[in-house]
Amino acid sequence: MKNLLADKSSGEDIIVKVKDVTIGGGNLTFISGPCAVENLDTLMAIGEGLKAQGVHMIRGGAFKPRTSPYDFQGLGIEGLKILKAVGEKYNMPVVSEVMDASQIEEALKYVDMIQVGSRNMYNYTFLKELGKLQVPVLLKRGMSATLSEWIYAAEYILKEGNMNVVMCERGIRTFETITRNTLDLNAVAMIKEHYRLPVLVDPSHGTGRRELVKPMSIAGVSAGADGVILESHITPDNSVSDARQTINIKAVGEIMEQCKIVRSVL
Amino acid sequence: MKNLLADKSSGEDIIVKVKDVTIGGGNLTFISGPCAVENLDTLMAIGEGLKAQGVHMIRGGAFKPRTSPYDFQGLGIEGLKILKAVGEKYNMPVVSEVMDASQIEEALKYVDMIQVGSRNMYNYTFLKELGKLQVPVLLKRGMSATLSEWIYAAEYILKEGNMNVVMCERGIRTFETITRNTLDLNAVAMIKEHYRLPVLVDPSHGTGRRELVKPMSIAGVSAGADGVILESHITPDNSVSDARQTINIKAVGEIMEQCKIVRSVL
Amino acid sequence: MKNLLADKSSGEDIIVKVKDVTIGGGNLTFISGPCAVENLDTLMAIGEGLKAQGVHMIRGGAFKPRTSPYDFQGLGIEGLKILKAVGEKYNMPVVSEVMDASQIEEALKYVDMIQVGSRNMYNYTFLKELGKLQVPVLLKRGMSATLSEWIYAAEYILKEGNMNVVMCERGIRTFETITRNTLDLNAVAMIKEHYRLPVLVDPSHGTGRRELVKPMSIAGVSAGADGVILESHITPDNSVSDARQTINIKAVGEIMEQCKIVRSVL
Amino acid sequence: MKNLLADKSSGEDIIVKVKDVTIGGGNLTFISGPCAVENLDTLMAIGEGLKAQGVHMIRGGAFKPRTSPYDFQGLGIEGLKILKAVGEKYNMPVVSEVMDASQIEEALKYVDMIQVGSRNMYNYTFLKELGKLQVPVLLKRGMSATLSEWIYAAEYILKEGNMNVVMCERGIRTFETITRNTLDLNAVAMIKEHYRLPVLVDPSHGTGRRELVKPMSIAGVSAGADGVILESHITPDNSVSDARQTINIKAVGEIMEQCKIVRSVL
Repeated sequence: MKNLLADKSSGEDIIVKVKDVTIGGGNLTFISGPCAVENLDTLMAIGEGLKAQGVHMIRGGAFKPRTSPYDFQGLGIEGLKILKAVGEKYNMPVVSEVMDASQIEEALKYVDMIQVGSRNMYNYTFLKELGKLQVPVLLKRGMSATLSEWIYAAEYILKEGNMNVVMCERGIRTFETITRNTLDLNAVAMIKEHYRLPVLVDPSHGTGRRELVKPMSIAGVSAGADGVILESHITPDNSVSDARQTINIKAVGEIMEQCKIVRSVL
Repeated sequence: MKNLLADKSSGEDIIVKVKDVTIGGGNLTFISGPCAVENLDTLMAIGEGLKAQGVHMIRGGAFKPRTSPYDFQGLGIEGLKILKAVGEKYNMPVVSEVMDASQIEEALKYVDMIQVGSRNMYNYTFLKELGKLQVPVLLKRGMSATLSEWIYAAEYILKEGNMNVVMCERGIRTFETITRNTLDLNAVAMIKEHYRLPVLVDPSHGTGRRELVKPMSIAGVSAGADGVILESHITPDNSVSDARQTINIKAVGEIMEQCKIVRSVL
Repeated sequence: MKNLLADKSSGEDIIVKVKDVTIGGGNLTFISGPCAVENLDTLMAIGEGLKAQGVHMIRGGAFKPRTSPYDFQGLGIEGLKILKAVGEKYNMPVVSEVMDASQIEEALKYVDMIQVGSRNMYNYTFLKELGKLQVPVLLKRGMSATLSEWIYAAEYILKEGNMNVVMCERGIRTFETITRNTLDLNAVAMIKEHYRLPVLVDPSHGTGRRELVKPMSIAGVSAGADGVILESHITPDNSVSDARQTINIKAVGEIMEQCKIVRSVL
Repeated sequence: MKNLLADKSSGEDIIVKVKDVTIGGGNLTFISGPCAVENLDTLMAIGEGLKAQGVHMIRGGAFKPRTSPYDFQGLGIEGLKILKAVGEKYNMPVVSEVMDASQIEEALKYVDMIQVGSRNMYNYTFLKELGKLQVPVLLKRGMSATLSEWIYAAEYILKEGNMNVVMCERGIRTFETITRNTLDLNAVAMIKEHYRLPVLVDPSHGTGRRELVKPMSIAGVSAGADGVILESHITPDNSVSDARQTINIKAVGEIMEQCKIVRSVL
């Protein structure tokens, strides 16, 4: 892993601008929203709440890669339109998952940052296409990807000329079953020590348990993360998916507060 | 996992025809060839050797999903042309990996069966596109996919109408480092007990060690596998990739012999 | 891992005698019995059945290492006495788990072979004590032990002078949840290629699913195993523990038949 | 996992006193020292340095459970005597690993707290013996133990009447190879949410990389840990074992400083 564009030795730390939000460079960025975009009214209410808490960007799934083909697959483009409407209303850039190179062009009409999901981290055709654009990319770690594979996935994008890559640790697959995944903060610390990419943590998917989101958010920031992605909803128990790990708007604000305090003293 | 098209209870066991080769239905199918297509002369020599041993189909990588963007990425379409030439010369259907929905149409001019590699098992856009065709698909297990996720990946294809799906166990990621992967024969036995899909084993990638290919091939057939994929080369140590797990043509014949004997007595 | 007593290069393959039963040296040995010794009558009935099938040795847990301190911990010495009575009645050597160096002396009054369970593979004090005796030892692999660690555990015994060590692969811990463990036949093949220790497989614990015991037994023998340990009961559904993976006496006979056929042709 | 003595619902949070050091109850406890006790002079120098930094307890291995029987196995009782001498000189309680029930009595002449190492977490005979005493126990997590198994291991001690149990997360075994283990802070947060046991983190073994010890210590405290165990040496590169993860005395002080600041604001 020598001489990669991602290496600290290859240049200054990478700072990614998503409209007027800056990720990296000492900033602490918060992205929040529901697992899946459900409808305009609900997302508007969520957006209003998150904006009031000072959240920087809004997220929500429109193209949902689901294990079963019989499960809800998301609203697709319709979902992206809703996201864009809410993002514009509350002046928050939006990020959403795109599953394939073929969806990039259409998606870019609506989103400000493209998320490469855990299942697509090894989709090198997709990564190369993203590398040819200047769109900010949120690159989630594959659920069993080594740090080295994850960095190389980023390198696929950087190598093509797009330096706007933000890493996101979202939990790895281990033998443990009491948490949905095992949020791996070692990887976060490794990136901050050895690479120049910004990195966020996603303790919602990373643990799959609501009560762990707060301590693991703070721990993530302490390990060096440049921000946190929080799955939230106005009525978490009514989420169409991932209810068990979703927190309410007020909890988002409390977590942000604690994270900022910790960041300020470190 | 109830009421899937893949379930044994949903119908007869699935038999997949690739030109005049039949996979499943009590047949024992052998597929062999180099990790990567290197050039016409080498592949012709390999093809000649494999045909003489009675191998049914030839394989070789043209689009190579490599961890590092700086590694050899395969010959691409040029590689598929070479495969087709050798397949036609020795009357063996060819299978090769395609990495993305966008490559399917072009690839189908040259290959008889499309391999979905381990890194793309969760690429649902790709799987859905393959479901809309009638092309035989070799669906490798994701390197950390649960059996349930793997079956659901097949279901993405079946659901769209393409019943020509062959599973391939190629080793899972565990804590063990002495083998490249851990070939999981439990999953093979589970499929034969509970699902109606044919399943092959790939002990070359599955173990990453040449000396284990023979015992694990025989063990795979004993666990119920419908065939074996063997990475082979006329001069294994000269393979451009994966030399450590590649065997020579004579070894392919010996392994086939043993597998057939075991199958005949079970 | 050079220059170990366990290495093939250090001498002839090790053959272990347990009374008149020989493990290794080309023999195919079958050990069977219930997960836990329950009472004399039940074990006598099991022993009678197993003897009639040609099983070589009887097993049964008396000291049960249970995850919860509130679960049934086994009958202890009373259980060993029952085992000995049944073993003598049907002329089958008995093997049972001992959990600690302090139990060895007492246990040796009743058992012919001491099992080191998965949880105790790293208990080096225990291993060293076993090394000072000439008792046959059945060394189960730790649930997440690398092959290297497992071989070194055997070496702890060999180094002290006791060469009567039989390895037993019993499934490793992976991300997969549909099977209780993942029986790792790669490790079996590795041992037969590189080490001179006999090795058995335990597909009952290794898979935790009754329907997988037969295919994985045959696969284990095909991978090179010197024998199989089968959890059995006269009425499997009434087992006090591990009922889900326990088979009946008739099934034991059928599996033995298939394993012997495969062994005879390889 | 209902109605355990370890459950929060079973009573007040457990506070463990080791001489005049208190673990739990809102305290932040630091334990440090070398991987292995080497000789009196070196440990005296380390002890002097650690005391000056405000470290509460000193640690050092005397009985070393090593993977290979041919590796250095520690100084044994001689090592414990050195530990005791240093602990008395600098008024720091000492903790050291004991490998087996048979060593407890002798060890208690020298140590103030007994460490159950990762390899012995499932050694239930040992745990039960510790439960019959009132000695403080540092219970390291098994390298692949689920949280549930680890809690039950503690319960083995609690159930016998010894409530002086301190948990220690020391990294789990995953597919990742760039770190020695994966320090699992999710488990720390889970314990603080659901159980009444104090829990420490060991980022030295947990990551195996010197540069990660500081960020993961702070992250551990942020996740709720009651203290940190730091492997240290006056000349880390000269450690007889684990040099790669050992830090110097000054670094211990810096990490303590940062941890205390974070704790004070949370």
